[in-house]
Amino acid sequence: MHVHAFIEEMERLAPPEFAEDFDAGKIGLIVEGRPEISRVCCALDATLHVVNQAVVASADMLVVHHTPLWTPVTAITGRIAGLMRALLSADMNLYVMHTNFDRAQQGVNDALAEFLSLKEMSPMSIGCVGSCTLSPDEISRRLGGNCRLWGEVKKIQRLALVAGSGFDPALLIEAKARGADTFLSAEMKHSVARSAPLTCIEATHYALEAPAMQRLSARMGWQYIDDPPLLQIIP
Amino acid sequence: MHVHAFIEEMERLAPPEFAEDFDAGKIGLIVEGRPEISRVCCALDATLHVVNQAVVASADMLVVHHTPLWTPVTAITGRIAGLMRALLSADMNLYVMHTNFDRAQQGVNDALAEFLSLKEMSPMSIGCVGSCTLSPDEISRRLGGNCRLWGEVKKIQRLALVAGSGFDPALLIEAKARGADTFLSAEMKHSVARSAPLTCIEATHYALEAPAMQRLSARMGWQYIDDPPLLQIIP
Amino acid sequence: MHVHAFIEEMERLAPPEFAEDFDAGKIGLIVEGRPEISRVCCALDATLHVVNQAVVASADMLVVHHTPLWTPVTAITGRIAGLMRALLSADMNLYVMHTNFDRAQQGVNDALAEFLSLKEMSPMSIGCVGSCTLSPDEISRRLGGNCRLWGEVKKIQRLALVAGSGFDPALLIEAKARGADTFLSAEMKHSVARSAPLTCIEATHYALEAPAMQRLSARMGWQYIDDPPLLQIIP
Amino acid sequence: MHVHAFIEEMERLAPPEFAEDFDAGKIGLIVEGRPEISRVCCALDATLHVVNQAVVASADMLVVHHTPLWTPVTAITGRIAGLMRALLSADMNLYVMHTNFDRAQQGVNDALAEFLSLKEMSPMSIGCVGSCTLSPDEISRRLGGNCRLWGEVKKIQRLALVAGSGFDPALLIEAKARGADTFLSAEMKHSVARSAPLTCIEATHYALEAPAMQRLSARMGWQYIDDPPLLQIIP
Amino acid sequence: MHVHAFIEEMERLAPPEFAEDFDAGKIGLIVEGRPEISRVCCALDATLHVVNQAVVASADMLVVHHTPLWTPVTAITGRIAGLMRALLSADMNLYVMHTNFDRAQQGVNDALAEFLSLKEMSPMSIGCVGSCTLSPDEISRRLGGNCRLWGEVKKIQRLALVAGSGFDPALLIEAKARGADTFLSAEMKHSVARSAPLTCIEATHYALEAPAMQRLSARMGWQYIDDPPLLQIIP
Amino acid sequence: MHVHAFIEEMERLAPPEFAEDFDAGKIGLIVEGRPEISRVCCALDATLHVVNQAVVASADMLVVHHTPLWTPVTAITGRIAGLMRALLSADMNLYVMHTNFDRAQQGVNDALAEFLSLKEMSPMSIGCVGSCTLSPDEISRRLGGNCRLWGEVKKIQRLALVAGSGFDPALLIEAKARGADTFLSAEMKHSVARSAPLTCIEATHYALEAPAMQRLSARMGWQYIDDPPLLQIIP
Repeated sequence: MHVHAFIEEMERLAPPEFAEDFDAGKIGLIVEGRPEISRVCCALDATLHVVNQAVVASADMLVVHHTPLWTPVTAITGRIAGLMRALLSADMNLYVMHTNFDRAQQGVNDALAEFLSLKEMSPMSIGCVGSCTLSPDEISRRLGGNCRLWGEVKKIQRLALVAGSGFDPALLIEAKARGADTFLSAEMKHSVARSAPLTCIEATHYALEAPAMQRLSARMGWQYIDDPPLLQIIP
Repeated sequence: MHVHAFIEEMERLAPPEFAEDFDAGKIGLIVEGRPEISRVCCALDATLHVVNQAVVASADMLVVHHTPLWTPVTAITGRIAGLMRALLSADMNLYVMHTNFDRAQQGVNDALAEFLSLKEMSPMSIGCVGSCTLSPDEISRRLGGNCRLWGEVKKIQRLALVAGSGFDPALLIEAKARGADTFLSAEMKHSVARSAPLTCIEATHYALEAPAMQRLSARMGWQYIDDPPLLQIIP
Repeated sequence: MHVHAFIEEMERLAPPEFAEDFDAGKIGLIVEGRPEISRVCCALDATLHVVNQAVVASADMLVVHHTPLWTPVTAITGRIAGLMRALLSADMNLYVMHTNFDRAQQGVNDALAEFLSLKEMSPMSIGCVGSCTLSPDEISRRLGGNCRLWGEVKKIQRLALVAGSGFDPALLIEAKARGADTFLSAEMKHSVARSAPLTCIEATHYALEAPAMQRLSARMGWQYIDDPPLLQIIP
Repeated sequence: MHVHAFIEEMERLAPPEFAEDFDAGKIGLIVEGRPEISRVCCALDATLHVVNQAVVASADMLVVHHTPLWTPVTAITGRIAGLMRALLSADMNLYVMHTNFDRAQQGVNDALAEFLSLKEMSPMSIGCVGSCTLSPDEISRRLGGNCRLWGEVKKIQRLALVAGSGFDPALLIEAKARGADTFLSAEMKHSVARSAPLTCIEATHYALEAPAMQRLSARMGWQYIDDPPLLQIIP
Repeated sequence: MHVHAFIEEMERLAPPEFAEDFDAGKIGLIVEGRPEISRVCCALDATLHVVNQAVVASADMLVVHHTPLWTPVTAITGRIAGLMRALLSADMNLYVMHTNFDRAQQGVNDALAEFLSLKEMSPMSIGCVGSCTLSPDEISRRLGGNCRLWGEVKKIQRLALVAGSGFDPALLIEAKARGADTFLSAEMKHSVARSAPLTCIEATHYALEAPAMQRLSARMGWQYIDDPPLLQIIP
Repeated sequence: MHVHAFIEEMERLAPPEFAEDFDAGKIGLIVEGRPEISRVCCALDATLHVVNQAVVASADMLVVHHTPLWTPVTAITGRIAGLMRALLSADMNLYVMHTNFDRAQQGVNDALAEFLSLKEMSPMSIGCVGSCTLSPDEISRRLGGNCRLWGEVKKIQRLALVAGSGFDPALLIEAKARGADTFLSAEMKHSVARSAPLTCIEATHYALEAPAMQRLSARMGWQYIDDPPLLQIIP
């Protein structure tokens, strides 16, 4: 398949016009390699480990959620030089789908909701609210464990979820207004926790977003390369 | 003591010119109450619980680290109205020392370093690096437990610490360049963890900053009001 | 009446979407007090005198034209602390209608035109032009006296008026283009007077805007609290 | 005298580096005419009447306080075209000294203080405070009458004055802190009057600044052209 | 013809709404002279030579492409004073049509295309592409000679042209995408030439834009005043 | 030699603090390759031709004047991808010295002045003025021919030169004030030529800046790779 055809297919899955303004120039084909695509790998982040695995797998294309070129650069040095050398020497393409995939059908938030068996979904401006039969413990277990719970523990009826870094005060208020009693996301801040109007469960960014990339890989016949950050709780 | 004399004393402890630019207008006397100060309470945050406790204690002055008026306001409604009503009805003053106290002698970072028994300190642009004889487990225990450790566990020799939200890529690089092998702060982000050049221990913002307010209270003969956020790990 | 119902009624009288952009966040419920509204006071400005009178009158709500929190604040001190203490201790609400009321039907400019018996009105981008049978002396008398007249005195046929601070060069040109021979407003500047294309009558800001608040109070059954600035001419 | 020598002399009287930043490019030689200067006229504003009088007087140079090109222009039309035609056709130079002259020795504020017989002067960031033996009535009379007095009338001991448009809240506070009981300036605004911490006397901009230009003309042997705005009180 | 009627006619020829945003305030009547227009001169630039020739021709109006007041001014000195003196003393009007004329029918780009006998035109976002039977040598000769050719010389089939300074990388890409093999404009930059995707012919700005003003003059019965910059090649 | 030692040597030749603010982040080590440097190539621009020649020469380091990453990027595609692939696959370093080298001793302007045998040099804010015994024809010949001369041809006594794109109105005025009669630079604009106060000779950007890179290469024992843009005059 030519890279142009591949891009068209990706844009059907995750239309660029769904993306937040801050993603302008940071999604789509981010590193241009060879034009013919037959083998595709997929991961959440374009780490050096992931790229090296994709090289071993002879991939022509690597699809990720997070661009390694978030801050615009005028120099290719250090960690970025290592990544770019690995990609360009192998003539591998790198394709990014970020907030456009968060919001896509079967995208990041949909995949997470399905992964947690939510029902009777209603959408939020980002993420969604759904009926939840899991306890906090079961949610944590499905997400690889080691979640943090902020506020009072209570039985969850309606769970709001925002994959990635979603503990925004306005989103918490929206979730509560839509009937949620608990809010699941990543990267809690002290000032947000202090005034949160509902109980919050904090998982890792990786645990919330990886399911979508795994499911996408399974659906498309790609190879998913798992690379979670090393993390443990010290009680 | 007149409030002007009290302010002078506070400015000796935490000189306003030590503050970051973003604190302009957000430190010092933030709510003006009665001019005569005899009883002082102290806390990390001006929560409604804290203010109510200070009212019960008949305080004339409440000293906190985090201003409740961070975002400039043109309306006093909701949570802010509740806080302001409690403070102004009681004619209580509210005094804030933030990044100026972070950097003060015996300030937030100094107090944390002492609390963790660091030795042979060398300063960073924010926070410091010191020799550490505690293990990650012991550090977590002193900080109330439930810390998260990102990266490989190893014996700590030189610990960098930044009280509050200090996981900034440039600070991590500075810490490593100054010989640190481990970095202690709060509010880790996925993108920072992904490229961190050293092992990171993530405590809560509260656990890192409360020791300084407690020690200040003890030193000054004030009443410290403890109000940590409710938090637990779901394994 | 619940405060929500009261706000809805106010928004019918002076729709928020009529307001200038610079009023964003500065109109509507500016200080939140008790939720039940039975007694309402009204004034042009929320001065301490006005608030104290409203407290004496046991008002639940004070409606004014000018917000006391024009400049966004991160501290409640000095004059603002006094005002907020008086309002919040009494659990009184403060509601502001500004440029949205200037432009409303029966709003500030309409009320002034009626007060000066203008006829055959045509609207300007702000304010209006109408046929006027009053002489400058009679206009001044109705407005409490002590007006200043800039330019040549002549019989008024068509009077342009802009309540508040409306001596803007572009408005003067618009007024003349719409057939006005005289322009009534407040707060003349030397540079504007120097190049004014028509005769200008300068009243006080208060005299031009108070009639609308008085009429609104009469219509709604509220208590109007008069508090003009102390002003006299030294001949 | 060559125009370069004339400019040097003016810059000694009113050094350009005394000017406020907003005067950048708006003081000094604003219209360039013939290089040889023998006859000089002076006025407060470069009105068409003033320029025509200067042409009648065969002036080579007109010195004024207020530039006619305050707003940068990309077209010479209307009132500006009339002024420029009159100046350029006569090959007359136009020289502006504005905030640099306000602050100069024997400049605008000094001249006003002397004109009102102030003694024991102390400078403010703009303007000054001095002991005053005149009553408000006498001040008004010296300034051509028709002043407005805001606040309570009381015997003046120490008068603050700022020629031009000086009713700035920060200046009022500074004046009071320096011991003033009354503040004299022009162009009062309602919001400033509402919270003024001392009595204010409002004269016209012209009356406050013309004395300095008249005295300068007398001192230099220039012809002063008087052109006050037409103004009268309607009682 | 009154100047208002003249302006209306000009606005039909080159509608102001066709202009680029950066032309706001810089097109239309730029210097206002006498209101009655009977004799009109036209040129590309309002140089002093051109204005003096227009005075000799007793013109009431001078129409040019480039305004002499590009940068907004707060002083009329030096070269601008000389120009304005010549215009205003003669009571001559100056009218500017710039990017609105570039884009007008029979405007600057149309006139150039016709001058070079282009056929089968298709428009670009600025300028156009057309079939060209001239060789680079013939193009240079028609444009007064001394063109510079960047890149490989080849037979021209489809020529893109942008009168004025049009060597913009995005325009070059657009031209190539529309089938052009050669791009004609003025004011090449090294960085653009380095990555140009097609051969570029660089003429002078004057040579590309003067034909439109000459044709307009011929059509309207005006006197065209030619004033090309002095330029020669040193081989 | 280690790349760190190489960078130190370069920074002695062209100190980074000499650079214009717009060069921030765009000079120094722009692409990071292998750490050991034994073979160095040098060119004016990092074109693909130049990089390929450097690869053929087995260079570890390529030193150029113009960075290929001028505009900050968030994607490596098209021409940039080709360049980066060639550099990174070969593990070659790319080092840029731009305005810091323009101003260095024996830098771009010095080298050009020496190349044209200027004497009795006096510096300008950028570039310099010197006595010149060459005629315009001889200057053109030394610079590879095909220069353009704007204005009147006259015998050159004092030549101002600014390598690169230096036809800035303020620089032209400075040059004349410093006694220059002719100004040599590249990339003339019509609006600048129209009001130039002295004769201008326009060479190509490449011809003015290449001598410095050639001389630097000769001095350092590097291999210079010549790659001038294709350019010819069509008479």
